[in-house]
Amino acid sequence: MTSLHAPADLRSVIEERLRVHLAERTTAAHGYGAAFEQLWELASIHALGGKLVRPLLLVDAFDALVEASGLPLFAETPRDSVIELAVAIELLHYSFLLHDDVIDGDLFRRRRPNLIGDLRSSHPASDASGTDQHWAMTGGILMGDLLLAAAHQIFARANVTHERRIRLLDLLDHTTTESVAGEHVDVGLSDGVVTPDLHTILTMTAHKTATYSFELPLRAAAILAGADPTVEHSLAAAGRHLGLAFQLQDDVLSMFGDASQHGKDPFSDLREGKQTVIIAYARMTSAWASIEPTFGNAELTDSDAITVRDLLTSCGAERFARNLVTEQMSALYETLAGGPQDIAIPAELRGVIVNLATRLDGRSS
Amino acid sequence: MTSLHAPADLRSVIEERLRVHLAERTTAAHGYGAAFEQLWELASIHALGGKLVRPLLLVDAFDALVEASGLPLFAETPRDSVIELAVAIELLHYSFLLHDDVIDGDLFRRRRPNLIGDLRSSHPASDASGTDQHWAMTGGILMGDLLLAAAHQIFARANVTHERRIRLLDLLDHTTTESVAGEHVDVGLSDGVVTPDLHTILTMTAHKTATYSFELPLRAAAILAGADPTVEHSLAAAGRHLGLAFQLQDDVLSMFGDASQHGKDPFSDLREGKQTVIIAYARMTSAWASIEPTFGNAELTDSDAITVRDLLTSCGAERFARNLVTEQMSALYETLAGGPQDIAIPAELRGVIVNLATRLDGRSS
Repeated sequence: MTSLHAPADLRSVIEERLRVHLAERTTAAHGYGAAFEQLWELASIHALGGKLVRPLLLVDAFDALVEASGLPLFAETPRDSVIELAVAIELLHYSFLLHDDVIDGDLFRRRRPNLIGDLRSSHPASDASGTDQHWAMTGGILMGDLLLAAAHQIFARANVTHERRIRLLDLLDHTTTESVAGEHVDVGLSDGVVTPDLHTILTMTAHKTATYSFELPLRAAAILAGADPTVEHSLAAAGRHLGLAFQLQDDVLSMFGDASQHGKDPFSDLREGKQTVIIAYARMTSAWASIEPTFGNAELTDSDAITVRDLLTSCGAERFARNLVTEQMSALYETLAGGPQDIAIPAELRGVIVNLATRLDGRSS
Repeated sequence: MTSLHAPADLRSVIEERLRVHLAERTTAAHGYGAAFEQLWELASIHALGGKLVRPLLLVDAFDALVEASGLPLFAETPRDSVIELAVAIELLHYSFLLHDDVIDGDLFRRRRPNLIGDLRSSHPASDASGTDQHWAMTGGILMGDLLLAAAHQIFARANVTHERRIRLLDLLDHTTTESVAGEHVDVGLSDGVVTPDLHTILTMTAHKTATYSFELPLRAAAILAGADPTVEHSLAAAGRHLGLAFQLQDDVLSMFGDASQHGKDPFSDLREGKQTVIIAYARMTSAWASIEPTFGNAELTDSDAITVRDLLTSCGAERFARNLVTEQMSALYETLAGGPQDIAIPAELRGVIVNLATRLDGRSS
């Protein structure tokens, strides 16, 4: 597959557009005082810190579909609009991250202070009143709102036909509902409000991140490129399988992976009591009686944690979770191959998706 | 001025459309488990509990403008679209209220449990872990997100010309930014991050509620009715004056009004340390030395509070705040009369606005 841009080029194009968007917002914030301006300045730094996986997938998928169609490039949708939508997807992603961090009370992401952490240290409280924490959480909530609104504004203004704009808005609606519902169930699992059975955890995993990370960019590309709705339908299935595989693989690596490579606390999921498919499986085995008392214990020692991890392996939970990843990957390849139910996804786009999936397969951290 | 609907009729039309919108969302939530469905069910009850001041203002203003234009009714915009936009404005309002309540940790509104309060009692924690509070706050954040998104979706789909839809989206963007900025500054004032000078408090007061409560419905009506942008401009000014007068009047009544009529704790603003123009003025007088030690003291006795309130009167803060209300009302009437800078607002619409303003003037609680 040829590409209009070398990957590094495309990344800088998207990053530049995102930077311009955030800079405009920061300038507009001037009129509302120093605190609001600082909120935008800090948010811009953090919003620009991502790997842009989702926007890149959108633009790559769009290019592949246009190339496959044999139509002149951009006959359907100006590339400018595609880049704008890619920016919107990154803003939506960061908005979800921010509200997740507020809800979890997280002040760090990848071992560095996140926006909330930065906001907290920007106004240290002179006493134990907790106003610094409150101020930081408020900034997280309000900036999440502003970015959610910004993503919607870009979708609403997409420079495409009326019919396509409505399809894009329907997709955004579906995505927002599903991602928020997934987050809601995830919190319900931690707070003991939702029963942690396997089906619920699997569905939550798919909704919370797979939908907006993979299904959204692939379907948006199909709509923008004027692909047949049946192609969009197949891409939705492919996105869900790929996204679920990614997320399940994350859970497996976080628990059983090489901590020296992924760089996270290797036992944080155990100490936080994170409800994953690994735990859901273990709960159905006789090993659970030994695991349960330690699960969610923030003070769990490393050596006790190693014992629990070994139990999760010996009871079959590790194998079960790894099999689920394999199953989702097989389902993905079947969708790409185009079974009787699936309208063929063009070879050019299959290449883009297989490329992403291969990166997943090769991950060990 | 004649009206298409008796006021009670119009209210039920809007309420019914809001109810249908929420019912559709609740039905769609079925697919995401009992907890998410319950969130929508409870949110629907609370979202339907408002007085619909903002949607009614939008539709009344639209009707007045259409009548004044002399064009056949609905030549410009189908009434259906106007009602839809009215619903969007109510959803936006409730979304802002929800996130305000989360930020303030409020579990009540008008002495009854709000959505967050209801969510907390729906899942009482079996221990002191605070998971019930966390679950409730999470529901508030996520439902606020969903309703903010829903309001944007309705604006994005407005069944009007492309040019008008862009004007509506610009207005929504302006409104969201300004309301969120106002809330951010308000929290900054309570958290001691923003300096409580008079100008800042006055601007915050205008941004936080006047913009979305009065400017938004009036300007949206102008756009939908195809009024000249200069009329929209005058209506924006009128909305800001009216909104600021309302909010300042609220602050005055809350501190000096008849508690037996407004039904609120007459000293809650003092006990909470709410930064109002009354306090900003008092801070500049010699009385502040006596007021400051009690300001924001949650344990303040009624008799000490009465002493402080009397000080606020004798130092001139009450008179100052009441004068500000009068000033805003004069500015409103000047805008309505159409000064050299203002394009005349049609008499039919002046009637609607004066009617609202009269209700304000007559308020004693």
